[in-house]
Formats: sequence, C-alpha cells, structure tokens
Amino acid sequence: MHDWLLDLLQEMGATLRLPTSFVVIEFIGTFAFAISGVRLSSAKRYDIFGAWIVGMATAIGGGTIRDLLLGVDVFWMTNGSYFICCALAVLWVMWFGKYLIRQDNTWFLFDTIGLALFNVIGIEKTLALGFPSWTAIAMGCVTGAAGGVIRDVLINEEPIIFRKEIYALACVTGGIIYVLGDHFGLTAEVNALLSSFMVVLMRILAVCFHWQLPILKGRE
Amino acid sequence: MHDWLLDLLQEMGATLRLPTSFVVIEFIGTFAFAISGVRLSSAKRYDIFGAWIVGMATAIGGGTIRDLLLGVDVFWMTNGSYFICCALAVLWVMWFGKYLIRQDNTWFLFDTIGLALFNVIGIEKTLALGFPSWTAIAMGCVTGAAGGVIRDVLINEEPIIFRKEIYALACVTGGIIYVLGDHFGLTAEVNALLSSFMVVLMRILAVCFHWQLPILKGRE
Amino acid sequence: MHDWLLDLLQEMGATLRLPTSFVVIEFIGTFAFAISGVRLSSAKRYDIFGAWIVGMATAIGGGTIRDLLLGVDVFWMTNGSYFICCALAVLWVMWFGKYLIRQDNTWFLFDTIGLALFNVIGIEKTLALGFPSWTAIAMGCVTGAAGGVIRDVLINEEPIIFRKEIYALACVTGGIIYVLGDHFGLTAEVNALLSSFMVVLMRILAVCFHWQLPILKGRE
Repeated sequence: MHDWLLDLLQEMGATLRLPTSFVVIEFIGTFAFAISGVRLSSAKRYDIFGAWIVGMATAIGGGTIRDLLLGVDVFWMTNGSYFICCALAVLWVMWFGKYLIRQDNTWFLFDTIGLALFNVIGIEKTLALGFPSWTAIAMGCVTGAAGGVIRDVLINEEPIIFRKEIYALACVTGGIIYVLGDHFGLTAEVNALLSSFMVVLMRILAVCFHWQLPILKGRE
Repeated sequence: MHDWLLDLLQEMGATLRLPTSFVVIEFIGTFAFAISGVRLSSAKRYDIFGAWIVGMATAIGGGTIRDLLLGVDVFWMTNGSYFICCALAVLWVMWFGKYLIRQDNTWFLFDTIGLALFNVIGIEKTLALGFPSWTAIAMGCVTGAAGGVIRDVLINEEPIIFRKEIYALACVTGGIIYVLGDHFGLTAEVNALLSSFMVVLMRILAVCFHWQLPILKGRE
Repeated sequence: MHDWLLDLLQEMGATLRLPTSFVVIEFIGTFAFAISGVRLSSAKRYDIFGAWIVGMATAIGGGTIRDLLLGVDVFWMTNGSYFICCALAVLWVMWFGKYLIRQDNTWFLFDTIGLALFNVIGIEKTLALGFPSWTAIAMGCVTGAAGGVIRDVLINEEPIIFRKEIYALACVTGGIIYVLGDHFGLTAEVNALLSSFMVVLMRILAVCFHWQLPILKGRE
C-alpha cells in the first residue's frame, strides 16, 4: 500500500481514536458509501463536482447529523481524509464505471461492513457522552442510515430505506445487541464485534431471503 | 388511564418543566403530528419502520431544528417518550387505518391543538434564552411548522404549507399575540392561553371559510 | 436613500463587524439570493408566505448550515434585517414581477456579487475559529451554495448546482485564492478582494463561454 494512503488512514484513526484495524474498515466503508452516492449522481447525469457533493453527503451526512444532535464538534471538520476518500470514489466511478455492476456484490459487502462500523461508532460516541441506551441505538441508526436519506433527498427520489431494504432495522438490532452486551458487562471490543456481526448477518440474510418489513397499507 | 401511560406523560412533563395539564395536550399533539406523517407514509406504501421514521420526523422535527438553531440540547435526546408516542401512532394506523377518514375532524382538531402548544413552547423556550421577540415568533413557527416540511421533503412531495393552508401564518399571529401580551405585562400562563386560542381559532376559521393567502402569480 | 434603509444596513454591519462598504454589498447579495427563491416559488404558485420562507431559505440557509457546522451562534438569530430584506424581495416580485426577465442580467450580476461575498464571509469566519484552510474553503462553498440546494429541495426539484452551473467550483477557486494569499502574507482585505474578483470573473466567463464541468456518464 502506498505511503500517502497509510498516512491518510492513520490520520483518520488518530481523529477517531480507534484501533488501527478499524481505520482500514472505516476507509472501506466511507468509500463504499460514497460510491453509492456517486453512482446515483452518475445515473442522474450530474457533473463531477455534483457527484462529489452527493458522495460526501452519503458518506459523512449521517455522522454530521449525529454530531449536530449530540452537540459535539463535527468529525470531518478537522480531518480532510473524508473529502479525499470521496474524491477517490468519484475517480473510481469515472475510470471503472463500466465494471461497477460486475462489482455489485463487492460493493454490497463493503457497504454492509461500513454500515456495521458506522453503527458501532455512533453508539459508542453517544454512550461516551452519557446519553441513555436507547438514544445510543437511535444515534447508531442515524450514523449508518441518515446519509442514504440525504443522498436520496438530494437526487430528488423517495428515500429507498423507507421501502425496500432491511437497513435501519439491521442497525437497530445491532444496537440492541451492543447495549445488552454493555449491560451484561462485556468489553467494548466484544460488543463492537458482536454488534457488527449481527448487522452484517442480518443484512445478508435479508437480501438472500428477500426479507422485508410489512408495508403499511394505504386503506384510504 | 393505564399507569404506564401516566408515567409516560409525567416523564414528558418533567423534561419540559411544564404544568401537568400541558403534558396531556403535548402527548395528543405529538400523536396527531405523528399520525399525519404515518398516514402519508402509508399512502406511499412505506414499510412500518419507514412510517415510524416519517412520523417521528413530523412530530419532533420542528423542535429539533429549533433546538439546533438555539444551540441547546435537543429535547428528545434524553426522553424516550416521544419515540414511544410515535410508535403508538404507527400501531394506531395499522389497527384503525380504515376508520381514519371518519376520524378526520378529530385529527384536525388534535393537530391544531398540537400546533398551538408547540408554537407556545417554541416561543417560551426562545424568550427564556434571551433572544429578541421576533426570533421567538420565528422559533414558534419553526417548532410548529418545520416538522410538516421535513415530512413532505422525506416523502418527496412539495411542502403543503407553502400552498394550501393558513398554517404557519396562524403560528405567527399567535406569536405576535404572545409577544404583545408579554410587552403589556401579562403572565406567561395568560399569554400561552391567549396565543393558543388565537392559533386554534385562526386555523378553524381558515378551514371553515376557505381562507388562503394570495398566491404569488408566475408572470414569467 | 431612506433613513430606515440606512439603519437596516448599519444594523447588518454592526452584527457582522465588517466595513460599511461590505454591508451594502451584503444587502444586495441577500436580496438577489432571496429573489431567486421567491421567483421559483412564484413559478410553483406558492402563496406569499411560502415564497417568503423559500426566499429566506435561499438567502440565509447556507450561512445557517455553516454556523451549525462551526458550532457558533446562528448569524440571523439576533439580527432581524435578513427577514426584512427577504420580505422586501417578496414585495419586489409582487410589484415588478413582469419586469424580472428584463432585469435578468442585473440579477445575475447581484447574485454573483452576493456569492463572492458570502464565500469570503464563510472563509474568514472559519479561519478566525482556527479551522484548517481546506475546511475554510469548504465552509465558504457551503455559505455560498447550500442555500440554493435547500431552495431546490424545498420546491421539490433536483438541485440545479449539481448539473448546470459553475457555481460551487467558482467558490472553491475563490477559496483557494484566499487561502494562498493568506499563506503568502497578504492582508485580509486584499485576499477578500482578490478572492471575490476571482469568483465573479469565473462565473461570468462560465456563462459567456458555456463552461461546464464534465458530466459523470451513467454507463449502467
């Protein structure tokens, strides 16, 4: 791996105060989230700057809303690596755009790993500030899922998570696992692993078996 | 009334530091706002989780934006009762969905009472922080009306308050009444009552007599 | 010029702590931004209150998001002149609506001058708080361009800056000029002038020569 990429990853890690192994996962997650925003912008024929903005909104929008709600400094305001990560996602779509469909399973996996990590980051940050457990679960969900909602609002589509995927529910389930583990005295590392595993497992099962939440039928 | 409901209401009251009578009204208002979000989600065939999110955005979105603008702790972050209230709204639409149209007048009344109360809460909170009167009027309006705007953005529709209803204007009128009463030395209780009465009256009259603000005609 | 308008301008200046010459430019910029929101509301046949809200969202939305991200007091919460400026924009469209197309070049110029000034205000405010240079560039861009994005989300259209105009890029270029000038020890006044000139120049050239960023083609 190139030196500048290592530096970039380490800078991300330093800001988050997370073990270095997390940083690589976070880079992959941010990249995968950004890719999903950039791809949709590309389908709408946005220009490359617009695609960059939508990619960033997708990748860092959830964490931004979380930090505003928690009343703490917004995480990316002192760390340029997220902007660079999203710019790389634009380049990736420009250069490898025609291979993206073939890579769909890979992106789904990266996106899911990102979701699991963002969920855990949101939960830990909220608990560390002394908020109640259910607020932490909600903030995990906001960190993981709100970016996709902002993306869909910006491209003027109905937010997909309200209809098609077990996405936010995977976050909530992972959040409950974390909070329960915390209650029974497990360490933060074990909780993070169990919770992440649950999010990944649930999302993969949901896609494989076409799980869907019941639709609230319009009787009117 | 069941004990857990009383507890829930009292917890809401404790957080808001409002007289207990207000708490019942606030629960009704929150519930009515959430119902409006859940019904529209149902018409869009969102799943139950999506409906819950949209219901919450409608019910607590306005207060959230107000608290972010005021730079204070967001009111629902330490009080789970709003989440539960919105979940009850989802259950209500699931179980009594087919009766909702017949209940339309009731929901209109509850929604209007909620609007009046949210407006007063926004005004009082802003004045208590030392902001000028006109900021308080604006924040009352944000508390009452911004949730509906967020709801309409999330379901990808044009915000209805920009076109069809004397909604925000009722808030502004109620706000002016409050601020004038404050100026002439009336107590907070009297101001709250007069202001709320004005909001309710104005909205009912607007619906009965089809009041509308003039449309800004597109001459271009 | 009438006394009350001078008072209004001076109140804006006092709040911003900017030289008085800036204040006139800021009023013109705010007015031009508001006009663009009000005109689009008029095309959607919103009522006058809706048009006012959309005009305000366009004019002060970018600065609001900037202040929330920076964690400082929101600039218009203690200064009523922005609300009045936007109300005047509604009156202008009501009274002179049919002449607006003929005034298009004037509005384009005012809007561009506003963009250049808002960009500089965002950059200076961010640097004064000790954030890194690239954050300042980003916040300049947010101050200038986010209002238009909020406007387009509120009228339920795709944000125009993602597709049609060199708008955000002009901000970024102006921001880089400012930061470079700062690095080489130029005074804030010179930097502000150079940066603003660059934004105005770039936007005028972009319109004259139909500059566009490359579109990210949808190969899927």
